[in-house]
Amino acid sequence: MTVSIAHLGPSGTYAESAAIACARWLQRTTGQQATLVPCPSIIQTLRAVATGLSQLAVVPVENSIEGSVTVTLDTLWQLDALQIQQALVLPIAHALLSRAPDLAAIQTVYSHPQALAQCQGWLEQHLPSVQLVPTNSTTEALQHLDAEPSSAAISSSRAAELYHLPILFYPINDHPDNCTRFWMLGLSPSRRGTHTSLAFSLPANVPGALMKPLQVFAERGINMSRIESRPTKRSLGEYLFFIDIEANLDSSVTQEVMVALEPCTETLKVFGSYDILRVDT
Amino acid sequence: MTVSIAHLGPSGTYAESAAIACARWLQRTTGQQATLVPCPSIIQTLRAVATGLSQLAVVPVENSIEGSVTVTLDTLWQLDALQIQQALVLPIAHALLSRAPDLAAIQTVYSHPQALAQCQGWLEQHLPSVQLVPTNSTTEALQHLDAEPSSAAISSSRAAELYHLPILFYPINDHPDNCTRFWMLGLSPSRRGTHTSLAFSLPANVPGALMKPLQVFAERGINMSRIESRPTKRSLGEYLFFIDIEANLDSSVTQEVMVALEPCTETLKVFGSYDILRVDT
Repeated sequence: MTVSIAHLGPSGTYAESAAIACARWLQRTTGQQATLVPCPSIIQTLRAVATGLSQLAVVPVENSIEGSVTVTLDTLWQLDALQIQQALVLPIAHALLSRAPDLAAIQTVYSHPQALAQCQGWLEQHLPSVQLVPTNSTTEALQHLDAEPSSAAISSSRAAELYHLPILFYPINDHPDNCTRFWMLGLSPSRRGTHTSLAFSLPANVPGALMKPLQVFAERGINMSRIESRPTKRSLGEYLFFIDIEANLDSSVTQEVMVALEPCTETLKVFGSYDILRVDT
Repeated sequence: MTVSIAHLGPSGTYAESAAIACARWLQRTTGQQATLVPCPSIIQTLRAVATGLSQLAVVPVENSIEGSVTVTLDTLWQLDALQIQQALVLPIAHALLSRAPDLAAIQTVYSHPQALAQCQGWLEQHLPSVQLVPTNSTTEALQHLDAEPSSAAISSSRAAELYHLPILFYPINDHPDNCTRFWMLGLSPSRRGTHTSLAFSLPANVPGALMKPLQVFAERGINMSRIESRPTKRSLGEYLFFIDIEANLDSSVTQEVMVALEPCTETLKVFGSYDILRVDT
């Protein structure tokens, strides 16, 4: 049996590396083969699952340097039906790719804004006067290298291999502990694993409204490993809260938490329980 | 006496509009004239004040649709010395600028990623198959319009006037209540106003460590109007928390809070007290 996995494409992105790691994990644990479905954006990657075009989607959630991938959180809240089947942590090591002979010849550096931000210190030190140009993915940045010999791109060393492009420097990220957490999502109910993710909105204009749900976790000794706020998009100062807890959804204490959250939240969405897989490069 | 205000340039950005509003407010309240100092990035805008190149900086903090401007929070944490002198809320209305005769002729849309995201629904409905190309500012997007007649840019109607460019559609943002909060920062101690901003890191690997500082506010009846987490950049899952409270820094209850926060935070930084100015367009 074959399962399809949507991810941000084209080939060579970090999202594709994460999707490949998920495919290997699926084969090891279930014997299933996977086919990859590259998509033009994170929104379209998630919609591919919601509309039945693909069975699974692998999307970035959070980078250790740049923080949340907000489009993932916002789309997940909107789409409603998606459940987290597995989390995956991928180490990120950026390379400077170019057809230029050396750094002195480089005038422009292309990459995804997150990658440019993660190499900001290196760029300021080694290429202080180049123009930094954002692109929609680290792979899209590579399109410029052949036509513009004075340009460089920040991408993975895997992309350099795939597209036969020379690496001038590697690694160039400012923080060695750079890694990105991905979620593999699907429509199946997801109730196995040590971590649970949920999100809620709060009743409007109630001072201190956030304290009540947070106390629900604290009073039961449940550790929140993450809390992230996002605007409701209704009015400045109104937020949704995305929370990860270290507990399984079906445990009696988590079930108690869910009951206690109902009266102190406006809308409550549960994205399922899952384990975390750490990938070596 | 003249005061200098740094902001993200070039001329025509929303940050410049915010800086102009701050200049008017300064003249009204203190009689001071202001000169604007356009900078190539938000980091350089903030550094201009830290290094004495400019006396004040105006930077975006948060948009009602896209959420936090993370580079502002991260740079503020690193630079240490900056204090918030005033907050300002600016309504945002995006226009589609182009030399094309109509929508059918448009193949590419340039803009800052935040502006592209804020018009995503409109773009999907009216220009579903165009290429979306990110730029470093909404003004930078305008550079393409003369050379590429099939391109459009998302920018302000003020930029259209400044650069004599035709507006094809206005407004095109998906949410009518689109506004951005800016902070005006300087080196002077800032202790007047109804709002206070602070940030802290937590001792590492202590489960439930976030609950203690949050309870410090709750127990004293202080309303948090905002909580935002950012990665410490040391290790995935370690965060800084930026908190806005509705209280003046010198009030006895806030002083009590500061004392109580010390033992339950690792590093605690206070960015001052300030009022919020709402700007009409």
